[in-house]
Amino acid sequence: MISLEKALKVIENIGAADLPAERIHLKDALSRVLAEDVYADCDFPSFDKSAMDGYAIRREDINKILKIIEFIPAGKKPVKSIEPGTCSKIMTGAMLPEGADVVVMKEDVIVTGESISIRNADTKDNILKQGEDLKAGSLLLNKGTVLNPIHIGLLASVGATEPKVYKPPVITVFSTGDELVSPEERPVPPKIRNSNSAQLIALSKLAGCRTFDSGQVGDDSQLIFKTIQNALADSDIILLTGGASVGDLDYTGEAFEKLKSKIHFTRLAIQPGKPVLFATVANKYLFGLSGNPVSSFVQFHLLVKPLINKLSGLSSESKVLRLPISIDLKRRKSERTLFIPVRINDAMEAEPLEYHGSAHLNAYQKAEAMACFPMGIKDLKQGTLVDVRPV
Amino acid sequence: MISLEKALKVIENIGAADLPAERIHLKDALSRVLAEDVYADCDFPSFDKSAMDGYAIRREDINKILKIIEFIPAGKKPVKSIEPGTCSKIMTGAMLPEGADVVVMKEDVIVTGESISIRNADTKDNILKQGEDLKAGSLLLNKGTVLNPIHIGLLASVGATEPKVYKPPVITVFSTGDELVSPEERPVPPKIRNSNSAQLIALSKLAGCRTFDSGQVGDDSQLIFKTIQNALADSDIILLTGGASVGDLDYTGEAFEKLKSKIHFTRLAIQPGKPVLFATVANKYLFGLSGNPVSSFVQFHLLVKPLINKLSGLSSESKVLRLPISIDLKRRKSERTLFIPVRINDAMEAEPLEYHGSAHLNAYQKAEAMACFPMGIKDLKQGTLVDVRPV
Repeated sequence: MISLEKALKVIENIGAADLPAERIHLKDALSRVLAEDVYADCDFPSFDKSAMDGYAIRREDINKILKIIEFIPAGKKPVKSIEPGTCSKIMTGAMLPEGADVVVMKEDVIVTGESISIRNADTKDNILKQGEDLKAGSLLLNKGTVLNPIHIGLLASVGATEPKVYKPPVITVFSTGDELVSPEERPVPPKIRNSNSAQLIALSKLAGCRTFDSGQVGDDSQLIFKTIQNALADSDIILLTGGASVGDLDYTGEAFEKLKSKIHFTRLAIQPGKPVLFATVANKYLFGLSGNPVSSFVQFHLLVKPLINKLSGLSSESKVLRLPISIDLKRRKSERTLFIPVRINDAMEAEPLEYHGSAHLNAYQKAEAMACFPMGIKDLKQGTLVDVRPV
Repeated sequence: MISLEKALKVIENIGAADLPAERIHLKDALSRVLAEDVYADCDFPSFDKSAMDGYAIRREDINKILKIIEFIPAGKKPVKSIEPGTCSKIMTGAMLPEGADVVVMKEDVIVTGESISIRNADTKDNILKQGEDLKAGSLLLNKGTVLNPIHIGLLASVGATEPKVYKPPVITVFSTGDELVSPEERPVPPKIRNSNSAQLIALSKLAGCRTFDSGQVGDDSQLIFKTIQNALADSDIILLTGGASVGDLDYTGEAFEKLKSKIHFTRLAIQPGKPVLFATVANKYLFGLSGNPVSSFVQFHLLVKPLINKLSGLSSESKVLRLPISIDLKRRKSERTLFIPVRINDAMEAEPLEYHGSAHLNAYQKAEAMACFPMGIKDLKQGTLVDVRPV
């Protein structure tokens, strides 16, 4: 049994040097991972512009009556310079005319025919200076950025309409177990529906992957081996559930060995989710997850997600919050790190939800996160800061 | 100028009684909004089952030598009852045989030929009782739930493979302004690229909407009117940017009036984003947002998102956190509620990011949230709790 930290080091140290990338249209780039640094192709702003609707003047003229010589809307180049005694009416975002060093907002101006006087001489410049936000050629977005709407807007603003992004990892999911029927069927006890596959496919999609669903496979080592072998051709990662324990009917380990894969770990000091196989074969990644939907959910977040992030080219790790636990918690054994479903309450505490243990499939329904009860600790006092992973 | 709270009441009180819904396959249901309550079609668990790999026995026999009479894997119905002096080998998830009331985990058992003795009599039952998590017929998932991977797994587990979900709202986006060129073009100052459309399309997609991008339209009231009119046929919501102020070139209001729409508000006490038009016409919703990408981003989160949530049938509101601000903040004027980009630091504080004001398109690049500096307040002391909206 190894610790979660050690397992994560194993995953961190595994391959994935040159990730495949592709150019796609900006309209399809949301949530994809940028595979190149992107630079500003011009200054931002790209010219001195007015921050207000108002009048462009020389500050030295602020107490004079000024003649309006031009109207400058956004998008039109001013043709006249501001000479002493003159001003131009200017709109927000329009280019500042030569000679002007202040824009007086229109609310501070009295217009009389073709002239203005200024009510309030105590004014800011109201000018956005060329390059004040970003200089041409400077780095705008880093390689490894997951593109959110702001990033999409920034790419549009510099004309990067065909960004280079990493190809998403491809994941095949299947569940093993003679007890499983497809969700479409009505199971007669002791059969149950396969809910693990649908859940893991959804988790993989949310993590940005392309997915294949290979349904459910009986407890047959040869069939499991064949299913993995078929999936290897198209997939970067294979997730299978069930048979990851060391029970008499646990064929996953057998299949992994038959594939001549390198098995990195088989038991992890986490609860739920202790039996978990992780193996690699020829740059492909195999996870034997728990048949228990709560356990496989926790295992996915703790182990599979970091691998996906790595294969996706993400520059950042998933966020772990530190929040106080809202109540006292006790447990009898502490040789594993316990993960429990929590909501984040109005006091910004991790508030444990009703949870009957790892078979309680409904417990995570209203969970916003999973909180960590660290290994070696049996008493967790209210208010203790714990790691909280949004789910 | 009305307050944000009043504006949100206006949006809250507007229509959307009968939302259109459709049945789709479960594999396409991730992130969709459930349009019906879903009930458990059987008990969970649906039979008494073992929580462990071990031996099913009668507790009264715990100190005896017991004969193994059957092997019960998951998915197979036990055929023999546990009589005094006997036990059955049982796997995790397998059906408990009649007569047994405890499963002793295999690690606590010594096997000798066809018999066992039990090393540790102090054992839990290790039985998952039929219906202990959920009774048949009880409510599993509420109408209005945004389906996450756990919910997808739960739907699979009850055979709800064609859930009824709301149809997503349809949004058309376009930007107005003579200064705009498409992101593909290289602008000559004082022209700039239209980045607002790409950003708002991405925001709308993330909020679950179907989107149409109508690009950029010049400052021409008739053209803007026509563009809106065309979009009305296919869209529930129309977002346009630019021309929402009351400057001389602000045609949005003109177009909204020509459409005989009801204009609900035109100026909001928020910063950035004061000029914002919201109008309705025949069950369609029109927003005239700022031409400034930072302002339109803030307006989208504060105003458009709540409307989308409503039209999407969501039962819950977007989460607002209460976090301490990490530094002292001051400002000169306080007649509007100020929103600033922040990250959430390791101390769980809202930490303001560099922000030059509403034209600073790059400021939100690393933002995790926007923090609220309330109206009427000029000094915000470090540690004061503020509203923080994840973005």
